[in-house]
Amino acid sequence: MAANARIENALEAALAQAGGSGCPPQLTAAVRHAVFPGGARIRPQLCLAVARACGDDRPELSDAAAISIELLHCASLVHDDLPCFDDAPVRRGQPSVHSAFGERLAVLAGDGLIVVAFQVLARAGAQAPDRLVPLLTTIAGSVGLPGGIVAGQAWECESRVSISQYHREKTGSLFAAATVAGAQAAGGDAEAWRGLGEWLGEAYQAADDIRDVVADAQQLGKPIGRDAALGRPSVARERGLPSAMRHFDALVRNAVEAVPECRGAPMLRALVRSESERLVPSHLAAPLRAAA
Amino acid sequence: MAANARIENALEAALAQAGGSGCPPQLTAAVRHAVFPGGARIRPQLCLAVARACGDDRPELSDAAAISIELLHCASLVHDDLPCFDDAPVRRGQPSVHSAFGERLAVLAGDGLIVVAFQVLARAGAQAPDRLVPLLTTIAGSVGLPGGIVAGQAWECESRVSISQYHREKTGSLFAAATVAGAQAAGGDAEAWRGLGEWLGEAYQAADDIRDVVADAQQLGKPIGRDAALGRPSVARERGLPSAMRHFDALVRNAVEAVPECRGAPMLRALVRSESERLVPSHLAAPLRAAA
Repeated sequence: MAANARIENALEAALAQAGGSGCPPQLTAAVRHAVFPGGARIRPQLCLAVARACGDDRPELSDAAAISIELLHCASLVHDDLPCFDDAPVRRGQPSVHSAFGERLAVLAGDGLIVVAFQVLARAGAQAPDRLVPLLTTIAGSVGLPGGIVAGQAWECESRVSISQYHREKTGSLFAAATVAGAQAAGGDAEAWRGLGEWLGEAYQAADDIRDVVADAQQLGKPIGRDAALGRPSVARERGLPSAMRHFDALVRNAVEAVPECRGAPMLRALVRSESERLVPSHLAAPLRAAA
Repeated sequence: MAANARIENALEAALAQAGGSGCPPQLTAAVRHAVFPGGARIRPQLCLAVARACGDDRPELSDAAAISIELLHCASLVHDDLPCFDDAPVRRGQPSVHSAFGERLAVLAGDGLIVVAFQVLARAGAQAPDRLVPLLTTIAGSVGLPGGIVAGQAWECESRVSISQYHREKTGSLFAAATVAGAQAAGGDAEAWRGLGEWLGEAYQAADDIRDVVADAQQLGKPIGRDAALGRPSVARERGLPSAMRHFDALVRNAVEAVPECRGAPMLRALVRSESERLVPSHLAAPLRAAA
């Protein structure tokens, strides 16, 4: 089965179980709204691609690792969009969860998605308890404290911030978890895959900063200019656009080079390259590269 | 070591690790504020008491189960207190997290505490992967969807609510998890212990409703009359106080009778009785019992 079909099927199954008999109907709907329709699903794609490169001998565990990461990502988007943070009315081209369901259900949908991610891991881990421990350690650590995405988001509340630490935690940690957990789910050498996730996470954040300045809102599916409006650290504003673009290109090269030699390497390098084109499309990148 | 010392020590160790090098300082402080000083710590007390009754052969795992449940409880309090829910200025006699740190850090402290609970389980589970699967299933299920405390809280957003389902999920599920997980951490017969947690959870919620009407704010450590002000389902308002008191007493009797025969049974029955006195002190209970 193609990776994207595996991901969507596993997400559907997880939400069917979560929204099963007895779940408050509006919470079921809010959680669904947060997960479908999805964005690029790059984190679970990356996780499954690494699992496949490592043999994917327990596909149910690989699927669980991949979608638990996606559910945690969706949870973070719901809470980041709340009025007290970005106050974002739109996400992925549709109303944000709090716009559609109110603030209370947005808080609870985010909380619920975090916990459902661990319920998914527990179910799949029953078949392979020895692999559950490293998976849970990786995935919980990439979201929690001291250095997961929750900590990364909390740097927005501090007056003194290291931009690289902010990006590493807010974005990089879940990308690194995607590659490491993909290897762990398949019993592979997890640490060999960490670099790929880290570089790609940093590239993703750089691209996000660049697009926040140059893309149009329709293409992005969310309002532009938010980093500046919210006073958030931004590579693009700090370095200027041509330099930010050079930085992005270097990060993508590093990610490509970080793919370990293995049967799946060509597929993974192709995934990184196609993702980089999706992140900063050529028509946006070309003038910035020319200006550098 | 006494149970309360074990709990406080394990919580201290967990927060020291969570707030370690690199954690944003205000997030570290907000998370601490949510956990210390504690309330009665009844859920982890109950969890440890059951673990002890089942032999407590892996005390680190028992401690992890107990405090992960307490951390999840603390997380739910932080989010329940948010302006969009109860808008509670005070909790446990001190400013609520959002009053002290602002709404953004309160959202993140709650999110962080949820994830730290699973990080704690992952660390302790490394010593006993076979027990991690049932523990994770129990604890995540008691908080998540479809029937955990997040779902219970979400009934407050619905127009049609079953009061017993609301209470069972919002309060009972974490009490049931405390007894079941205590047994699972010690390799005991988990299902034998579910009834105790469920009855005690229901008693706890009934007591909360009664005290919300009759106790004074100073004693409660939080504002009174909130259920009525917020239009929340309440046993005390639905049945009247004397009937609610009769109901509470019956629930406590059921909890006492649900303790399985074992060496630890007398200690557990004593714990239930002392907890019931703490929940509805005699000077409040006596006039209500007399009126019934």
